[in-house]
Amino acid sequence: MLNFECDYLEGAHPRILEKLMETNMEKTSGYGQDPYTESAAQKILAACECPAGEVRFLVGGTQANATVINSILHTSEGVIAADTGHISTHEAGAIEAGGHKVLTIPQVDGKLTAAGITAYMQAFLADASHTHMPQPGMVYVSHPTEYGTLYSKAELEAIHDVCHEYDLPLFLDGARLGYGLAAVDTDVTLPVIAKNCDVFYIGGTKVGAMFGEAVVVTKANHIKHFFTTIKQNGALLAKGRMLGIQFDVLFTNNLYMDISAHAIRLAEKLKANLREKGYQFFFESPTNQQFVILENSAMQALSEKAKFSVWEPFDDTHTVVRFATSWATEEQDLDDLLALL
Amino acid sequence: MLNFECDYLEGAHPRILEKLMETNMEKTSGYGQDPYTESAAQKILAACECPAGEVRFLVGGTQANATVINSILHTSEGVIAADTGHISTHEAGAIEAGGHKVLTIPQVDGKLTAAGITAYMQAFLADASHTHMPQPGMVYVSHPTEYGTLYSKAELEAIHDVCHEYDLPLFLDGARLGYGLAAVDTDVTLPVIAKNCDVFYIGGTKVGAMFGEAVVVTKANHIKHFFTTIKQNGALLAKGRMLGIQFDVLFTNNLYMDISAHAIRLAEKLKANLREKGYQFFFESPTNQQFVILENSAMQALSEKAKFSVWEPFDDTHTVVRFATSWATEEQDLDDLLALL
Amino acid sequence: MLNFECDYLEGAHPRILEKLMETNMEKTSGYGQDPYTESAAQKILAACECPAGEVRFLVGGTQANATVINSILHTSEGVIAADTGHISTHEAGAIEAGGHKVLTIPQVDGKLTAAGITAYMQAFLADASHTHMPQPGMVYVSHPTEYGTLYSKAELEAIHDVCHEYDLPLFLDGARLGYGLAAVDTDVTLPVIAKNCDVFYIGGTKVGAMFGEAVVVTKANHIKHFFTTIKQNGALLAKGRMLGIQFDVLFTNNLYMDISAHAIRLAEKLKANLREKGYQFFFESPTNQQFVILENSAMQALSEKAKFSVWEPFDDTHTVVRFATSWATEEQDLDDLLALL
Amino acid sequence: MLNFECDYLEGAHPRILEKLMETNMEKTSGYGQDPYTESAAQKILAACECPAGEVRFLVGGTQANATVINSILHTSEGVIAADTGHISTHEAGAIEAGGHKVLTIPQVDGKLTAAGITAYMQAFLADASHTHMPQPGMVYVSHPTEYGTLYSKAELEAIHDVCHEYDLPLFLDGARLGYGLAAVDTDVTLPVIAKNCDVFYIGGTKVGAMFGEAVVVTKANHIKHFFTTIKQNGALLAKGRMLGIQFDVLFTNNLYMDISAHAIRLAEKLKANLREKGYQFFFESPTNQQFVILENSAMQALSEKAKFSVWEPFDDTHTVVRFATSWATEEQDLDDLLALL
Repeated sequence: MLNFECDYLEGAHPRILEKLMETNMEKTSGYGQDPYTESAAQKILAACECPAGEVRFLVGGTQANATVINSILHTSEGVIAADTGHISTHEAGAIEAGGHKVLTIPQVDGKLTAAGITAYMQAFLADASHTHMPQPGMVYVSHPTEYGTLYSKAELEAIHDVCHEYDLPLFLDGARLGYGLAAVDTDVTLPVIAKNCDVFYIGGTKVGAMFGEAVVVTKANHIKHFFTTIKQNGALLAKGRMLGIQFDVLFTNNLYMDISAHAIRLAEKLKANLREKGYQFFFESPTNQQFVILENSAMQALSEKAKFSVWEPFDDTHTVVRFATSWATEEQDLDDLLALL
Repeated sequence: MLNFECDYLEGAHPRILEKLMETNMEKTSGYGQDPYTESAAQKILAACECPAGEVRFLVGGTQANATVINSILHTSEGVIAADTGHISTHEAGAIEAGGHKVLTIPQVDGKLTAAGITAYMQAFLADASHTHMPQPGMVYVSHPTEYGTLYSKAELEAIHDVCHEYDLPLFLDGARLGYGLAAVDTDVTLPVIAKNCDVFYIGGTKVGAMFGEAVVVTKANHIKHFFTTIKQNGALLAKGRMLGIQFDVLFTNNLYMDISAHAIRLAEKLKANLREKGYQFFFESPTNQQFVILENSAMQALSEKAKFSVWEPFDDTHTVVRFATSWATEEQDLDDLLALL
Repeated sequence: MLNFECDYLEGAHPRILEKLMETNMEKTSGYGQDPYTESAAQKILAACECPAGEVRFLVGGTQANATVINSILHTSEGVIAADTGHISTHEAGAIEAGGHKVLTIPQVDGKLTAAGITAYMQAFLADASHTHMPQPGMVYVSHPTEYGTLYSKAELEAIHDVCHEYDLPLFLDGARLGYGLAAVDTDVTLPVIAKNCDVFYIGGTKVGAMFGEAVVVTKANHIKHFFTTIKQNGALLAKGRMLGIQFDVLFTNNLYMDISAHAIRLAEKLKANLREKGYQFFFESPTNQQFVILENSAMQALSEKAKFSVWEPFDDTHTVVRFATSWATEEQDLDDLLALL
Repeated sequence: MLNFECDYLEGAHPRILEKLMETNMEKTSGYGQDPYTESAAQKILAACECPAGEVRFLVGGTQANATVINSILHTSEGVIAADTGHISTHEAGAIEAGGHKVLTIPQVDGKLTAAGITAYMQAFLADASHTHMPQPGMVYVSHPTEYGTLYSKAELEAIHDVCHEYDLPLFLDGARLGYGLAAVDTDVTLPVIAKNCDVFYIGGTKVGAMFGEAVVVTKANHIKHFFTTIKQNGALLAKGRMLGIQFDVLFTNNLYMDISAHAIRLAEKLKANLREKGYQFFFESPTNQQFVILENSAMQALSEKAKFSVWEPFDDTHTVVRFATSWATEEQDLDDLLALL
């Protein structure tokens, strides 16, 4: 059975496993106080052209989102996010469990806009009752978004400017960041992100790692007691080097970018092929998630030979489905899928 | 440099890495919906003689403690624990961050006692103001304790009885459970634990796994929305099979018990050897952590050749230090250490 | 200056003050363990035809909402509410501060509908990812709503049935309940509410009391450790009889209904008068809040002689304003206001 | 039946009720935006010689404690308190419900000491694992303490200095502050408190008010979004002037001090009388709470004619009981009590 259901189906990139094997019986201190973690952090800061930053390695995305948001917000504050943002929908109320409201704004192609944030803040401040409301305390964006779309550099800069104006730290969830960086025609690079965000993370789980997200705080020690807050959120891995080793490998010899580019090449191939065949796409996605509208009986037939995600009904006779490529997708599998469509 | 600092210095047992390698490019569903996780759960329930139970695999100990406690307690309730319990001391306030007070009772050899819990509950209920206090809602014990000590079967049963009398679910933190089960002369087995506790976990991080704790709820579905609560606590691993595979290996061919027994054999050797040499032990520990009183200048000299944990000052000229053996300790290293002492 | 800004401008109904004076130097136990509180509770349960219920007196609305919701929900659960519900908007994130997401549904005339809740629950359960989302754990309605509108008995029963079907406790926020009960043509009475809700409160702050909300749990002891949860939420008044006395007076000789009817009579007079003059109403409100569309320069002129709430812009040249009558509104003031319009 | 059970048995000082009567039908804005609240705040800042401060009026003590602590601490932080502090014992876990651990230190006469805090902080910082522990983020003291004892000016200054050294805001719970200020021989005045604390509150509930605590932040706007945090904690009274009026009366013509002095005079009379008769006191209390050791059968006999609090057993045949005087205690009642003893 072909499987394009998501981008976390396999284990880890083979080089990571090799390195884990190779270093397995070394003895190092725990909790990220080891040379692999240090090395990975330095490589990431170099890639981000952000020497004054700080890197912390967490295990997963929901954990990273909750930990960062909890560590930044005052009790009275909430986080602005698109209503389709991952923290708004599929994180089981993790942000609220930390005491903070997710302040949702309607999305445009899965994205926040500078204008949308400005309008939200102006309406908030104009509301005579705004001291009776959760105070906007930071902004959350995902890049790529949940719709596979990307911010342009100009869009990100504009959001940065608005955030600066209203004193809102900007946090970028990069669970699929590699696929965003490797997209064709994007002008958003790691240094661009580091320059415009206060904190962001570089996703490993969906981009070659067994698990792990590298949280970059662009000014070291900007977040109070960050280490302790990580521990408090159950996000401090005892054998921290497992994370360090994985990211050290991913940021050696351009591996993270190379494997991301592979996924993008296959996604573009799928896109071109299906477009040629007359398929319609639900979102214009330049990344590894492709949202295609299938006729229901065709979808049913396909489901016997390939796995994919059912996104949502399109109309009475059609459904939106998602195909995801990844660092691990084999081109032959894609060709087989395309042959079925 | 020799290193007996803790029991999470190395990676994972080689058989685990082999299995991760072997299965690496398989495609499976995420979040624990895979055959390895299912297999591991079944093996664990069999080992616990607890067929009606439910197993969930979490990444780490603080995370497991906070998730289980949050999922069981009502907002008005706190958790009874020894004042030396891990949740009382070194988890960065994770339990309080979830809204619950840790209700501490003085420990005896690192342990709670049935009499101590009874006395606490009687005093609580006798206090005319007890409705103004956090309500005791469950009991937390660690086995082995933070002092390396163990409950006997009779002690555990007595605690179970008190808990039952006061309607307090009993939760056992088994971060180092293997080393407890493998101790010489213990009568506490997995089935004994499963019979006496409502929920407990079998530690992987410190006993052969790269990471991971297997939470056993002894009656399936006893904890409301447990899966969602795990997700909410950032404790749901996307590539859940990484946990399933590790525990599947650990619970195949008695591996978990065998590697634990190795650590115990070395700990007993250390104990016998040092006792013979006249060293004093700070705690009577039957498990892999040994707490030895060293004269300060001897400690200083030793520290140039071996790593260990400094526990606490004993008197002006002596210090308590901890040596930990583990599944990974090589006998030659131990012999070298003993030669230095 | 006339003042129709809200319904909590004055102190308390004179009979309440008299009773406070009369009883002032009596010595009674604290925390609601006094005969006045007991008497008030009995009168309320009688008025609700709910002898098996339990009444607790809290100080204010946000406090009552947060305390009730915290006491009912499991950590994994959120509360369903209209997107215009008070808890969704103007309570400063109090529900999220307790760890729970407000799960908003679009309102119809400020109300939830049985169909809307059903559609929400069906979509939720149909979503393959619903275990990754906050679990719907209860339903919150306000009656009167924030738009001054009312549920009919049939609407409330239909919501009760849906709640029952999906095992969702139903909570009714009656901060302005008197004005709803006294509305012309309503068929919703206290017994109807008690029959259809699991918990609700009878607002005092806006209906004749100095402060206070009477929370009715329709089955006593249904909420675990409710007294302790009230204390934990900072909602337990030391001199609890201050609340008991107020509600005892309000529920003696029909005072609560009489003073509510006064406010409704004046609101109806305002409505009839302005309608006759050709004014348009933004909502069809049968209660004490009337939302009128004013031309902007007329509004400006009026604001020099009378206070009212500016609700929201209607169009470029008109604004929606709110006039509130209350138990304390003098008819002459209303006549003076109407003369200005 | 005589009643010396506590200091919140009666309603409010008559002058307060008179003022509430007199102003009852005035119309003012809600939420503390009224002239009475403004006037009370100014009088309190003047009494504290703290013109740059900010005053907020909350309803009760647990609420004030939780709101202040939540508003100051970072998620990673806990609050240092005596193990007998009110927040450590009888507030139903309100501080933990806000996510923060109460970090208890052994008390000396119910008090923290500068040396105790220093020792705690030194041990904390010396602990190699201190980043795995809740971070000390502020210090809580009560004055008078739960044992009726008082800090001296020198003790308070020493604590202030330690707090300053470790960057810990100092918060003083003055639920019974009047009785502390009016004590014989105390050198702690409101200006002394304002000079040494970052935030404190002046208790009304137990000192003449119907309810209410005046929170003084000694530097205005020092606490981020304090108004919103008050609202979030359910601590914002809609008819805020009820609090303003009460404190305006209490801080007019020295009323707060005068009525406190009355309670102290009677407490001193009780103390002198009982001492003369050979009774032993459990604590040396210079304030309105007196802790006396009674022989059990005498206690039993007394309990038929007078109410008091049973504190704790002293030995097999004696019990510690508490008699509280207050602003409302009548001297004849005290004489009657003394005649019985």
